[in-house]
Amino acid sequence: MTDTVVSSATREVVIGFERPFVMIGERINPTGRKILAAEMAAGNFSRVEADTHAQLAAGAQMLDVNAGIPLADEPAILAKTVQLVQSLTDAPLSIDSSIVAALEAGLSVYKGKALVNSVTGEEERLESVLPLVKKYGAAVVAISNDETGISEDPDVRFEVAKKIVHRAQDYGIPVSDVVVDPLVMPVGAINQAGVQVMRLVGRLRNELKVNTTCGASNISFGLPAREGISAVFLSMAIGSGMTSAIMNPMHTEIVKACMGADVMMGHDPDCARWIRRFREAPTMAAGGGTAAPSEGAARGRREGGHRRRAQSPT
Amino acid sequence: MTDTVVSSATREVVIGFERPFVMIGERINPTGRKILAAEMAAGNFSRVEADTHAQLAAGAQMLDVNAGIPLADEPAILAKTVQLVQSLTDAPLSIDSSIVAALEAGLSVYKGKALVNSVTGEEERLESVLPLVKKYGAAVVAISNDETGISEDPDVRFEVAKKIVHRAQDYGIPVSDVVVDPLVMPVGAINQAGVQVMRLVGRLRNELKVNTTCGASNISFGLPAREGISAVFLSMAIGSGMTSAIMNPMHTEIVKACMGADVMMGHDPDCARWIRRFREAPTMAAGGGTAAPSEGAARGRREGGHRRRAQSPT
Repeated sequence: MTDTVVSSATREVVIGFERPFVMIGERINPTGRKILAAEMAAGNFSRVEADTHAQLAAGAQMLDVNAGIPLADEPAILAKTVQLVQSLTDAPLSIDSSIVAALEAGLSVYKGKALVNSVTGEEERLESVLPLVKKYGAAVVAISNDETGISEDPDVRFEVAKKIVHRAQDYGIPVSDVVVDPLVMPVGAINQAGVQVMRLVGRLRNELKVNTTCGASNISFGLPAREGISAVFLSMAIGSGMTSAIMNPMHTEIVKACMGADVMMGHDPDCARWIRRFREAPTMAAGGGTAAPSEGAARGRREGGHRRRAQSPT
Repeated sequence: MTDTVVSSATREVVIGFERPFVMIGERINPTGRKILAAEMAAGNFSRVEADTHAQLAAGAQMLDVNAGIPLADEPAILAKTVQLVQSLTDAPLSIDSSIVAALEAGLSVYKGKALVNSVTGEEERLESVLPLVKKYGAAVVAISNDETGISEDPDVRFEVAKKIVHRAQDYGIPVSDVVVDPLVMPVGAINQAGVQVMRLVGRLRNELKVNTTCGASNISFGLPAREGISAVFLSMAIGSGMTSAIMNPMHTEIVKACMGADVMMGHDPDCARWIRRFREAPTMAAGGGTAAPSEGAARGRREGGHRRRAQSPT
């Protein structure tokens, strides 16, 4: 059982094997969002504010913050965005950049224990990012690719993850502070992408004993009804042991898949969170038809002819 | 790899480990449907006809047929219903009754190789149902309960399933013709119900090497937004190795979960079935934005800042 604890100044969130799945909102990211990029570069953070509130309201327990704007002063903008978002919420943040100076700028103003997003298995990244993670007492996302690129062989990706975990330990970062991203490829292009990730997540959990995360949206790239594929992917990945994801919580279908998977994993006691979120008539909850049945009631009445016989065979 | 072949006079459907998930429509069942029960008892099968067409159009590859009407002549009605449904479709049927004489009446008129639904681990059921299955060369659903009821311990349910499989072999019925139902309990009452089923399905597949089915709707009994729970359950059960289910295909959310899980398992080559079903603009399929990307296209463009770096780290 591995718990990765991240925090803000006043709140902890735990990513763990026996915990509810942690949804990390992906929206505060100017990549591919031209208006947001232009606004952030010009010092207008109104959309960041709106994205913060909306993602939390939709169920995100953490938020990813990225300020990757071409030709802009990314370290300064990332630090400013981190400070702004922390002034709005006590949800812990994932500080997301490919520029080490930006990661450091974000970490230097962050209050609490952040999740650094990310380090890869490349030597230059390991040597520049891991000391920062140690210095600021953060946790880190470890992406399982290296100088040779992204292997299609999940066993190779496992070995890369293992290398990063061991290297982190050399820097004094415990295994529980490394959250491995197995790398999710688009299943529309690589038919075995889903199977690969599920197998890899299982190995990462059982053999390396690490928590896991991923950029979930990538799985459905290029497919119609893509939220449906992302939703199914998340349910199945959680079934395989995935413990968090950087994802879009603004799609109900996707949030439902994660919260339903928590129910299925036994991580939503009495289905309380599911019922609170999805009951149609809140005022009826105490005694109404949409509330959870008592154990006796539910077990006494099976539905359908198929199940009926299991209880009372002739 | 185990394949269970069922058939009508002219069409085979294969339930198997490396096959698309088989959705068995549950609607032709008067249990809990008063109007349907009254109509069927009176010889009016218009609703059966409508349910046949609707379930097939929704994606069911097989249909379950049940005629369990209190005080009615179930064997005669079941035989008549089987004949009617077979006159409407070449989809193979599951013949569903708790009355052995009704199973035999249905089997005696059935054209092809039916799925008998069901036998349990109870001695009296084993001795009465298995000879019928052998006589008609059918396959059979084996429900993992016995005289002691339904155990909450998945390992006990595994042993019951094993007993039924061995007993079937004594009657000359091969393992591949036994489809085990691990028994799905309502997760609103038993929080570990999902975890139990997933674990049991895994054991049934890996150790007993049998195909599996279940009455999927039962999982969500008593919960709000129950199709969401059933959908997530089916995705996760397929991820654990479940190969068919008796379910309601009239809910898009549930069909989407099964078809999406096929995509994730690599059982929908090129996502062709998913794309055919869910593309929004069918005429654009050849070159339009909703078609699957070529491998090169999809791999060349990753989405979002998180994934971008995996391809082109600084």
